[in-house]
Amino acid sequence: MATLVQKYGGTSLGDADKIKFVAQRVAAARAAGNDVAVVVSAMGKTTDALIALADSLSSSPEPREMDLLLSTGEIVSSTLMAMALREMGVPSISMGGAQAGIRTDTAHGRASIVHLDPARVRQELDAGTVVIIAGFQGVNDEMDITTLGRGGSDTTAVAVAVALKADRCEIYTDVDGIYTADPRVVPDARKLAEIGYEEMLELATYGAKMHPRSIELAAWYKLPVLVASSTKDVPGTLIHDTGSDGDNEMEISNKVRGVTYERNVARVTIRGVADNPGISARVFEPLTAANISVDTIVQNASTARLTDLSFTLESRDVTQALEVTRRVATDIGATDCVAHDHLGNVSIVGTGMQNAPGFASRMFRALADAGINIEMITTSQIRITCLVDESQVAEAVRILHDAFEVGEA
Amino acid sequence: MATLVQKYGGTSLGDADKIKFVAQRVAAARAAGNDVAVVVSAMGKTTDALIALADSLSSSPEPREMDLLLSTGEIVSSTLMAMALREMGVPSISMGGAQAGIRTDTAHGRASIVHLDPARVRQELDAGTVVIIAGFQGVNDEMDITTLGRGGSDTTAVAVAVALKADRCEIYTDVDGIYTADPRVVPDARKLAEIGYEEMLELATYGAKMHPRSIELAAWYKLPVLVASSTKDVPGTLIHDTGSDGDNEMEISNKVRGVTYERNVARVTIRGVADNPGISARVFEPLTAANISVDTIVQNASTARLTDLSFTLESRDVTQALEVTRRVATDIGATDCVAHDHLGNVSIVGTGMQNAPGFASRMFRALADAGINIEMITTSQIRITCLVDESQVAEAVRILHDAFEVGEA
Repeated sequence: MATLVQKYGGTSLGDADKIKFVAQRVAAARAAGNDVAVVVSAMGKTTDALIALADSLSSSPEPREMDLLLSTGEIVSSTLMAMALREMGVPSISMGGAQAGIRTDTAHGRASIVHLDPARVRQELDAGTVVIIAGFQGVNDEMDITTLGRGGSDTTAVAVAVALKADRCEIYTDVDGIYTADPRVVPDARKLAEIGYEEMLELATYGAKMHPRSIELAAWYKLPVLVASSTKDVPGTLIHDTGSDGDNEMEISNKVRGVTYERNVARVTIRGVADNPGISARVFEPLTAANISVDTIVQNASTARLTDLSFTLESRDVTQALEVTRRVATDIGATDCVAHDHLGNVSIVGTGMQNAPGFASRMFRALADAGINIEMITTSQIRITCLVDESQVAEAVRILHDAFEVGEA
Repeated sequence: MATLVQKYGGTSLGDADKIKFVAQRVAAARAAGNDVAVVVSAMGKTTDALIALADSLSSSPEPREMDLLLSTGEIVSSTLMAMALREMGVPSISMGGAQAGIRTDTAHGRASIVHLDPARVRQELDAGTVVIIAGFQGVNDEMDITTLGRGGSDTTAVAVAVALKADRCEIYTDVDGIYTADPRVVPDARKLAEIGYEEMLELATYGAKMHPRSIELAAWYKLPVLVASSTKDVPGTLIHDTGSDGDNEMEISNKVRGVTYERNVARVTIRGVADNPGISARVFEPLTAANISVDTIVQNASTARLTDLSFTLESRDVTQALEVTRRVATDIGATDCVAHDHLGNVSIVGTGMQNAPGFASRMFRALADAGINIEMITTSQIRITCLVDESQVAEAVRILHDAFEVGEA
């Protein structure tokens, strides 16, 4: 008998009928002979509605209060799902983070799971009961409710699966798998039958819909994760150990596996920074203190002990970031400080890239031929990302998807 | 410095503006130099909406799931109230049942508080923080959330006040105090400045708006409870130890303190029951098993070892109750079994009554003079209740309020 952890997102749980539909799928998985634990998100737009309520009462709601408030959304869906299953004759019980043994640190709004004791969940599964777990939340040592941040239900699902030593974690969502590129941008994008953890992690970090943390966790424990449609009965994408990450490579594809993008990117550049130890810390500490999340950091090669320091961030934070950075720039005697908004990222991802030359130059050439200017470049072992003008992002994705023949299996 | 526990009902918390208004009142109580803990109900019709959702998914929702579902309503209001106070510069923290140390038994949907450890609440109050507690709920030994049943937030407030050794519990609601009769029925009903626990308990049990359990608890610990308006700044009613309950009576008023009523009452009568030990148990055990709540039980004096057994209950349960009772009636060889619906209770309440004769006969006379037939009579030491036709309930209340001059101070 296999143990499965299934996760359903908010869109799949938008109303009573959708909950019933999902309950039937859960019941079918159990009828097929599996022990099934289910992690649910809040129904439809519940979380947004709760945030709006909080905003109407407070200009800066306390993170602890916000966590307790938002956690109710997932609690509601978990109890309703349990009721729907019982109504179908399937024994079922709902659990919040405390009941499911999910202990976190105290970082409200972005807590990390520090321990997960699956004893009670396991006991219920062993008794033939389907366990419905409220996603996105846990409790800290004071038994205060914490949340894991946006996309946290994916992390809950993977963590529960790891703790239960489940055979598989299944993420059901409104997309039916992981594509070589966003099908809305690239009509001939191809759904991947499988993908490795590292590639998926890069795709998730640079635009694909899954939460990077959940992929990291799954990769660490080599837990297979299926991403599939919550409504359609079509094959999804299996994220698992494809064997190409380690020394004993079964296959070197030498291929780009996917093209991803992000919009709403801005860049701040501090010019003429003295290239001394401690300068970076002085630049980024005030940004952290202002709760501004920085994405990529690039420091150009220095000339005459002066260097340029750039970082990207979400557009909505750029005004505040520039303000903070200008103050620092004056303090550290930098030349000046400028911001560019309306930018976007486009990335190519593939494990084959780390062992084969030429991917970067082919990428730059393809973009140049289309008249797309590259504002900044960052790379990892299996990813190359170019910062381009936001208006050219979609075109860049299509060009790269073609240039690297990503659509061909 | 006094410690106050304030409780606000759902109508007082219907939207963001109402929450802000209540927050100002809480802030004022704290500014006046008090330690303040606040117990809140769910916003407006939230609980009803959650019940409707559950009903759309299940014909008989599991009580444990229902508790977890409904508990979210009070959690939401508690976090929003804490946010509103912080926005006004008042330090504040919200707590659910687990955080506030409220431990209950496992009777989901109607749990009793078995222990309340106020250490964390006290610690926050000592630090000058206003503590907002989600009413109506606690946790059992398995850390599952339980609810205390309808009106349970009153019980939460009194229990928290008792545990904190608070100077007073203040129940703020959409009525501005306890009246000698329902002002909608009796226009010249008078608001009581104070009332004793026993009298209030009878009023609460027979129609007044407070939860009887909360009054019992307050009486046991002699905790003063103020019932007052959540919106208007007018004096309420203080429920406290008026001294007329004990041996050392300071005052014997010899007066009726209030007239209450209930509608939607039905009565079931089993006729020709053998007057043997164990018969009552055989009648009422199946009703309990069917989860039917019986109100008053009357067994008439027996003739020839046969007796009639009547009980009242809410109208909505009468069909099912009659079904259950008919089965029992056959088993125990009773003559027959009949039900009357569309009845109501009218009661007079006053501690003076226990030591003075003539209240009962004056009550029966007043009703008879108005042509109101009495279907059944039950009494306690400080209450006389008559079952009458539902269409005559309002008239009966007005007549009794006049006859006993309850409106005069």
